[in-house]
Amino acid sequence: MGFLELVSRRQSCRKYLDRPVDRGQIERCLEAARLAPSACNSQPWRFVAVQDPALKEKAARAAFSGIFQMNAFAREAPVLVFLIRERSKYAARMGGQVRGVQYNLIDLGIAGEHFILQATEEGLGTCWIGWFNERAVKKVLGLPWHVKVDLVISLGYSAEEGLREKSRHGIGDMSEVR
Amino acid sequence: MGFLELVSRRQSCRKYLDRPVDRGQIERCLEAARLAPSACNSQPWRFVAVQDPALKEKAARAAFSGIFQMNAFAREAPVLVFLIRERSKYAARMGGQVRGVQYNLIDLGIAGEHFILQATEEGLGTCWIGWFNERAVKKVLGLPWHVKVDLVISLGYSAEEGLREKSRHGIGDMSEVR
Repeated sequence: MGFLELVSRRQSCRKYLDRPVDRGQIERCLEAARLAPSACNSQPWRFVAVQDPALKEKAARAAFSGIFQMNAFAREAPVLVFLIRERSKYAARMGGQVRGVQYNLIDLGIAGEHFILQATEEGLGTCWIGWFNERAVKKVLGLPWHVKVDLVISLGYSAEEGLREKSRHGIGDMSEVR
Repeated sequence: MGFLELVSRRQSCRKYLDRPVDRGQIERCLEAARLAPSACNSQPWRFVAVQDPALKEKAARAAFSGIFQMNAFAREAPVLVFLIRERSKYAARMGGQVRGVQYNLIDLGIAGEHFILQATEEGLGTCWIGWFNERAVKKVLGLPWHVKVDLVISLGYSAEEGLREKSRHGIGDMSEVR
C-alpha cells in the first residue's frame, strides 16, 4: 500500500469491536514511533499502552468522565495509549525559546502519527484524543504530578463501515509552489 | 514498501544532488500533508514550497546566514518548504488552553511528517529544520510580520550514500505495555 493510500485510510475511529489487539501489533506501532525524528534527536516522548482490561477500564473511566464525557466512545477501545511529553535536549529547548516554538510538541505529534499510521497498516482503528482528564489518568497510572500526559490514542479493530470522505481545505488553500 | 520500512528509510539528508524535483512530486507531498488529521479538523498549517532557483537562493541565503549558518547545507537543496502555523479553531484553542497544550504545534508536526514520508516514498531526501532566520525569510517571501513560519523542510535528491543506523532510545526506555 502506498503512503498516500495509507494516509487516506487513516480516519478517526470512534466505534470499536470487542476484539483484543495482539501484543505484537502494539509493539510494531511503538517501534514506528520510536524511529521518529525529533529536534536534536531529543526523542521527548514516552508511550504508555494500557491493554489489561481492568486497568484500561479504570483509566478510561478516569479519562473520559465529567466534562470529558464527549470522548466516552474511547472507553470501548481495547487499548488506550497515553503519550507523555518530555523535555527536549538543552540545545533544542534554547533554540525553541529563541524561535518561539516548543519543539517537543511538534516531536510528540510526529511520533504519535508514526504510531497511528503503523496501526492503520495493521488494519487497526485509532483516534487522536487531546480532551481528557489528565490529572485523574495520572492517578490511575501512578504517574507523578509533574509528568505531562498530553494525548491519548485509542486503538482497536474498527466497528465502523468503510471510509468517509475527508473534509479538508483544497490544495490551493493550504499550499503554494513558487 | 511497508510503513516500518518507510520510516526506517527516512533520515535527515544534508547533501543534495544538483537535480531538480518534479512539480508532481512536490504536489504529492503536499497532498499527503493536506490529508493529515488535526485537532477539531482545524488544519492549522500552510506550506510554501519554493523551487524557483533565484527565489530559492534568496530565501536560502536569508534563512541560513549569521547565527543560523549551521544549517547552511540546506542552501544546496533544490526545494525549500516553509511551514506556516495558523490558529486552531476556537474549540481546539480553548481546549488547548484548559489542557495546557498548543494543539496547532502538534498538528503542524503531523502534517509536516506526512509531507516528509511521502517524499521518502518518492525517493527524495529531506531534513526538518527549526533553526533559521524567520524574519528574513518572511521579508523575502513577502509574508506579513504576524505570520508564524515555524519550520523549514529541505527537499531534493540525496547525495548521501546509504542508510545510517538510527540512534534511538530502546523500546523499553520509551514505552511500556501494561
